[in-house]
Amino acid sequence: MMQLKMIPGAIALLAGFAFQSAALAADEPIQPIKPPANINLGMVELGKKLYFDPRLSKSGFISCNSCHNLSMGGTDNIPTSIGDKWQQGPINAPTVLNSSLNVAQFWDGRAADLKAQAGGPIANPGEMAFTHTLALGVLESIPGYVREFKQVFGKNKIDIDQVTLAIAEFEKTLVTPNSRFDQWLLGKKDALTADEQAGYKLFKDSGCVACHNGEAVGGNSFQKMGLVEPYKAASPAEGRSAVTGKDADRFNFKVPSLRNVALTYPYFHDGAVWDLKEAVQIMADIQLGQRLSEQEADDMTAYLESLTGEQPQIVLPILPPSRPDTPRPEVKS
Amino acid sequence: MMQLKMIPGAIALLAGFAFQSAALAADEPIQPIKPPANINLGMVELGKKLYFDPRLSKSGFISCNSCHNLSMGGTDNIPTSIGDKWQQGPINAPTVLNSSLNVAQFWDGRAADLKAQAGGPIANPGEMAFTHTLALGVLESIPGYVREFKQVFGKNKIDIDQVTLAIAEFEKTLVTPNSRFDQWLLGKKDALTADEQAGYKLFKDSGCVACHNGEAVGGNSFQKMGLVEPYKAASPAEGRSAVTGKDADRFNFKVPSLRNVALTYPYFHDGAVWDLKEAVQIMADIQLGQRLSEQEADDMTAYLESLTGEQPQIVLPILPPSRPDTPRPEVKS
Repeated sequence: MMQLKMIPGAIALLAGFAFQSAALAADEPIQPIKPPANINLGMVELGKKLYFDPRLSKSGFISCNSCHNLSMGGTDNIPTSIGDKWQQGPINAPTVLNSSLNVAQFWDGRAADLKAQAGGPIANPGEMAFTHTLALGVLESIPGYVREFKQVFGKNKIDIDQVTLAIAEFEKTLVTPNSRFDQWLLGKKDALTADEQAGYKLFKDSGCVACHNGEAVGGNSFQKMGLVEPYKAASPAEGRSAVTGKDADRFNFKVPSLRNVALTYPYFHDGAVWDLKEAVQIMADIQLGQRLSEQEADDMTAYLESLTGEQPQIVLPILPPSRPDTPRPEVKS
Repeated sequence: MMQLKMIPGAIALLAGFAFQSAALAADEPIQPIKPPANINLGMVELGKKLYFDPRLSKSGFISCNSCHNLSMGGTDNIPTSIGDKWQQGPINAPTVLNSSLNVAQFWDGRAADLKAQAGGPIANPGEMAFTHTLALGVLESIPGYVREFKQVFGKNKIDIDQVTLAIAEFEKTLVTPNSRFDQWLLGKKDALTADEQAGYKLFKDSGCVACHNGEAVGGNSFQKMGLVEPYKAASPAEGRSAVTGKDADRFNFKVPSLRNVALTYPYFHDGAVWDLKEAVQIMADIQLGQRLSEQEADDMTAYLESLTGEQPQIVLPILPPSRPDTPRPEVKS
């Protein structure tokens, strides 16, 4: 009975804490990550299988997780990703972590949401190099998938909307709450060191928060890369102008989330910079026209490292096996 | 108190069941898979990280799990694996599942055990294309690994023996107990259908068990591929003779385990056959000189599908991040 008796007290305590925390966090330009809500767990489990299934690629070798690796901060930690037949992509793979918080998907925002994004790499000739029709043919041939899609969506046929909806639903769960910075925001005042707190103050005072704000510490606007001084990119990508057709949008890219930035090296849309401190210095330089001192750059880097949150705990899915009549992967060059 | 009271009875029941089961299984040429013993859990956790870490490859893109995928029966479900720069290997990737039960590793048995095997692909120019020295340089530069190796091995320097020992320790845990066939062997007589039981009887009577026996249903001897009639392989591999130098060993390959064979398509050392029933018919033909009827081939296939065991539940490891001075992956062709 002890446990039962304690519960009302604990609820009152938690409610009070949440109220106080919300008040504290509201004063800051960055908010703690909230747990995902309204999640369809059956769809998540199906989406997880699809996310890890290389049979959605022409070769049968590349899955979503190949380039958005959940062991590695939701990215691949190489400058630009490797695709079908070892092609190298034009741009750095953004992390899938907290990507549900982005205003749009891809560096140029050409997909409105996670569902719209999920179909892209499957059919991109430089990435998974498949087509939606061929991918659906593979899934339709696998009895385990046919059953699971029917259970989740209640239809007799698998279509690409179901596939991308399920992948997006899984991706919605890939948030990283409870970073030391979020604990600090929520009232645990010893969660950050003095250097990290100094770094956060500088992050606000010097104007980084103008773009890197909100729950994701970024991800909610498009900005020009090289606002004050031009950035000499190793990538041919021109950003937002490819979507809007407007010359004024050239080199406008989605501001990346800085959540887990210590894990998502190398940095920038061209993946050219490997050292977080160097990335901080470059950004201060070309976006804000500020030369940071070594101490300032160290403090700001220390602060950014406090943004690493709890990584999603993923139990590796067991994929339903193909059948002899399943269309076969095309591996050969 | 109810729960405590029940325990001695349950133990007695289990002990009796185990005694009876052992007696039953001892009469059969195939034994149930035993859980792994004498496991060092710290070493397993470290080995799991290494198994999933693509930084053990030159490109930073290929890990052990790329070709021995634990979502897909411990293999890659393509005829021969894709390596660095999209090179295609000469031979089908054997499953890592239950590989601790093999008499030796690789199709030609050139590695005595899992530890000796684990170093091979890292340094194979057609696979992960790295060197042991370079791989150690990467690991030594990552503080999270330095700490964990020290905790597990108690030494101040990481060496390749520690790396391969940890990977092997993780692989020892990758067994698949409790298949329906093992349940049947252990006394659950309704665990197999009548067709599957007929298939097992035929599997024994027709001589398949001469090679496919023991705990792994194979894996414990080398035999000639094409004993009665020659096998026209799509692979240039000549098997055991590459190790022994003896002409008599040409086309001798390690008999693969048939555990989880429904998941480990395509079949044979050249990965040329995708249909399990067709593989059964070919083996009866070229190894035993027997033409199976359709019913016999169906029964034997049904029996083999009952060998799919419980797949290892793997929580995806979170890999310790690189540092700015970590040697960088070489992706470019």
